[in-house]
Amino acid sequence: MKTQQTAEGVARPAGRPRSEKAERSIIEATLELLGEGIGVSELSIESIASRAGVGKTTIYRRWSNKEDLVVDALATLKPPIPLPQGGTVRDDLVTYLRVIQEEASHHRTRCIMNIAMSDSERHPRLAERFRELTVEPRRAVVAAVLRRGMETGELRADLDIDMALALLSGAVIWLTKWSHPGESHADIPERIVDEALKGFRPRPSEP
Amino acid sequence: MKTQQTAEGVARPAGRPRSEKAERSIIEATLELLGEGIGVSELSIESIASRAGVGKTTIYRRWSNKEDLVVDALATLKPPIPLPQGGTVRDDLVTYLRVIQEEASHHRTRCIMNIAMSDSERHPRLAERFRELTVEPRRAVVAAVLRRGMETGELRADLDIDMALALLSGAVIWLTKWSHPGESHADIPERIVDEALKGFRPRPSEP
Repeated sequence: MKTQQTAEGVARPAGRPRSEKAERSIIEATLELLGEGIGVSELSIESIASRAGVGKTTIYRRWSNKEDLVVDALATLKPPIPLPQGGTVRDDLVTYLRVIQEEASHHRTRCIMNIAMSDSERHPRLAERFRELTVEPRRAVVAAVLRRGMETGELRADLDIDMALALLSGAVIWLTKWSHPGESHADIPERIVDEALKGFRPRPSEP
Repeated sequence: MKTQQTAEGVARPAGRPRSEKAERSIIEATLELLGEGIGVSELSIESIASRAGVGKTTIYRRWSNKEDLVVDALATLKPPIPLPQGGTVRDDLVTYLRVIQEEASHHRTRCIMNIAMSDSERHPRLAERFRELTVEPRRAVVAAVLRRGMETGELRADLDIDMALALLSGAVIWLTKWSHPGESHADIPERIVDEALKGFRPRPSEP
């Protein structure tokens, strides 16, 4: 079997599987360091390499800079949302909000996102690429649900889709963050969707 | 003039003004360190004292522990919101959302809040006291505006106040955080309130 000398000085077989394993270690090391409160500015390729147990060149072979690596690492925390099952608009919106709620209540995810994003103004490219990679595709899925509802008449034809998305998503995060510790969070998605839909549904004609 | 020997070994006049000045330096040093990405867990009274140019005892004379100091420091970033002027519900809500928007778009405030809150699960008392000191009083002000609207008939009598608050506040933060860099943010509060009010106003009776 052909082997190659890595930067770490460890002989290993060449090929995909090993490289995917290294990639996962690098991503995991990046998330770990962010999760320990190390901001993007202080994060170094050296520290990631050392934590992942790989050489710096292994990282540079895959990512040409730190921001791209951080974006890819963050994206693993925000996988694509499940595609709507084509049920009622209410059901599809509840499904979406449940994903947002799950993420907002997950300590590690929230912590890492906060730390990475608290630095995003010093790293505008990071925020922009993260938006393209994870926020926009999700927005497109939910926008399609809302648009379908506007076509079938379940929702007002003049609904402002961006506002509707902001009201729904923002409310979940707000309530998950600020509701009282003792309060149950189980039905937050349903409660938000039901309250919001009162405004999103077509209004009966004024008497 | 009566003087006293401080822990720093500097003779200074006793009394309020000097102590208020020290207090401000301590608060400012705490915010600075958080703003540099130092999480609550790593933050030490030593580092705050050193940054503020005071002795540790000066800090302990005022705050018995780190969490209390952090809460007081964070509270200076979230002053009480202006009391409603008793205009329309719409105007009062727009005024409130403008405060939230201003804070959400302020780099330093957001950065510091993110860092402090990313640690809040390791410091539950911090989050709880911060909620009591800043979140709850604001919630009470806006809840009073909504309740007044429900009484005057501007809003639906069955409006869920907590949900309404979450929809409004969450949407501002969401849009300030995720809207495209080029987009104007100027009318976000008005757009959110107008969209939300479509659902908050009484519905004309079904035909």
